[in-house]
Amino acid sequence: MADLVVVGSVALDSVKTPFGKVAEALGGSATYFSYAASFFAPVRVVGAVGGDFPREHLELLRKRGVDVSALEVLPDEKTFRWTGEYGFDLNEAKTLDVQLNAFATFKPKLGPVHRKAPFLFLANIDPVLQLDVLSQMDEPAMVALDTMNFWIEGKREDLLKVLARVDVLLINDAEARMLAREPNLIKAARAIATMGPKTVVIKRGEYGALLVSNGQFFFAPAYPLDSVFDPTGAGDTFAGGFMGYLAQQNATDAAALRRAMVRGAAMASFTVEDFSLERLKRLEPREIDERLRIFADMVRLEG
Amino acid sequence: MADLVVVGSVALDSVKTPFGKVAEALGGSATYFSYAASFFAPVRVVGAVGGDFPREHLELLRKRGVDVSALEVLPDEKTFRWTGEYGFDLNEAKTLDVQLNAFATFKPKLGPVHRKAPFLFLANIDPVLQLDVLSQMDEPAMVALDTMNFWIEGKREDLLKVLARVDVLLINDAEARMLAREPNLIKAARAIATMGPKTVVIKRGEYGALLVSNGQFFFAPAYPLDSVFDPTGAGDTFAGGFMGYLAQQNATDAAALRRAMVRGAAMASFTVEDFSLERLKRLEPREIDERLRIFADMVRLEG
Repeated sequence: MADLVVVGSVALDSVKTPFGKVAEALGGSATYFSYAASFFAPVRVVGAVGGDFPREHLELLRKRGVDVSALEVLPDEKTFRWTGEYGFDLNEAKTLDVQLNAFATFKPKLGPVHRKAPFLFLANIDPVLQLDVLSQMDEPAMVALDTMNFWIEGKREDLLKVLARVDVLLINDAEARMLAREPNLIKAARAIATMGPKTVVIKRGEYGALLVSNGQFFFAPAYPLDSVFDPTGAGDTFAGGFMGYLAQQNATDAAALRRAMVRGAAMASFTVEDFSLERLKRLEPREIDERLRIFADMVRLEG
Repeated sequence: MADLVVVGSVALDSVKTPFGKVAEALGGSATYFSYAASFFAPVRVVGAVGGDFPREHLELLRKRGVDVSALEVLPDEKTFRWTGEYGFDLNEAKTLDVQLNAFATFKPKLGPVHRKAPFLFLANIDPVLQLDVLSQMDEPAMVALDTMNFWIEGKREDLLKVLARVDVLLINDAEARMLAREPNLIKAARAIATMGPKTVVIKRGEYGALLVSNGQFFFAPAYPLDSVFDPTGAGDTFAGGFMGYLAQQNATDAAALRRAMVRGAAMASFTVEDFSLERLKRLEPREIDERLRIFADMVRLEG
């Protein structure tokens, strides 16, 4: 069991899907990540919220054993807010509004416990912030990074700087193509490996996730859900299950990466079943085990 | 090893992709199916071509051991022609022109050898023709069917009649949703099972294929190709590998269905590497074995 640190957003999300809507619900990449990872390993969140951040959300993370000592509360700021909408094609969110608020001026300061963590996840935020956090670390065994079209287009140079120093990139397929400037996904994954990350995890929503690592491929199917309610946070939850498992095993070898992929896919399959962290909040470890059995069965060739 | 019969089109295709174009090349659902299946089991084609059908195409099938005795040559008719185009999103073909020609009036007449075959594939043609062929069969062990949006919308009642009598439906995901009138794919597969076919194979192109059979799921990833040249025939080739393997094993149990899925995916991965049957024509059995090894490795959890 090894320590895991995440830097990313802790947010209030307003989301509309064809099945309902929710206003100012708990969200943010570091939130989904840390809550999911907490089922596997101890997690420490680096980030910032405003004075308006509901105290019960902090309590929720604390109750899962998440260390929020480096989640700064800036009393004069407001919390990061995201407003988005999904159509019947739940694969793509339409962002209606983003307010950086507390994140606009946030300067992460890592303490000695955080710096020594062997596992670091740089969730989807400004690559300048990601690089700042990475530079403060002692010598992590594994650094993983997520990003999005906004940074790939708007801060490509900064993103390439931090990418050169990470081991794993977790990214969706459209973003992988955009980053590599290559329409073929397999060629794109190979091109990304030359930018730094030797392992690329391509998240494809309802189509599963593909791991490309040192020329080897591994495919984790998506769990066959008969209702997807809200895909918000699925990617961050996937990353939480993935990195949480690696930290729990304190391993970064090829076999561990494969098993981590399936944990990521299992955790993501719960998040999308309800708004915000509602499904994760009622999640029992035995339910994770049950989905892992179904995942193994879905690719079993023996019959 | 058991006999396998296919009814479907034998055609001349004119295709344009972002990577090139080809005019009046050998195509058609029964052609791709039978050529792919011939790597596993003896196949007999039921269909019709016109007097203009190049003799060398018949020779090509014969050389693979395909029985073309029930492929009628109608000297006064022209061969079925399809003209289509793909954009950079190779997942969807745009049909520019279809000329049924020999298929407009074709009345299949099965001989005693065909009637006794235990495995039957009703490739994508008019459901009235599919039902006609099925009605002439003695007592096949397994009947599989493919169809498309054109018949789902235009001949739904006829399609439902034949569906009620088949064991396996092979279909792409958009068509599965359309047939079931249900946007969720898992619910759609379940709804289709109530129409007749206890096994539904949902083909998802570059995202792989999903088997839903008696409430069990199996997922075959797509082979990670670094260049897809022309997707025409991929679905029929998949079906050929799938049914060819089942006929070879003379088996229809759950374990055989899973192994058949991977054979289908492997065969399809070759077809898309070139126009028409060009890649299949230079295919060596050891290349199939090699891809099967990679498929097994892509889902191996042990590392």
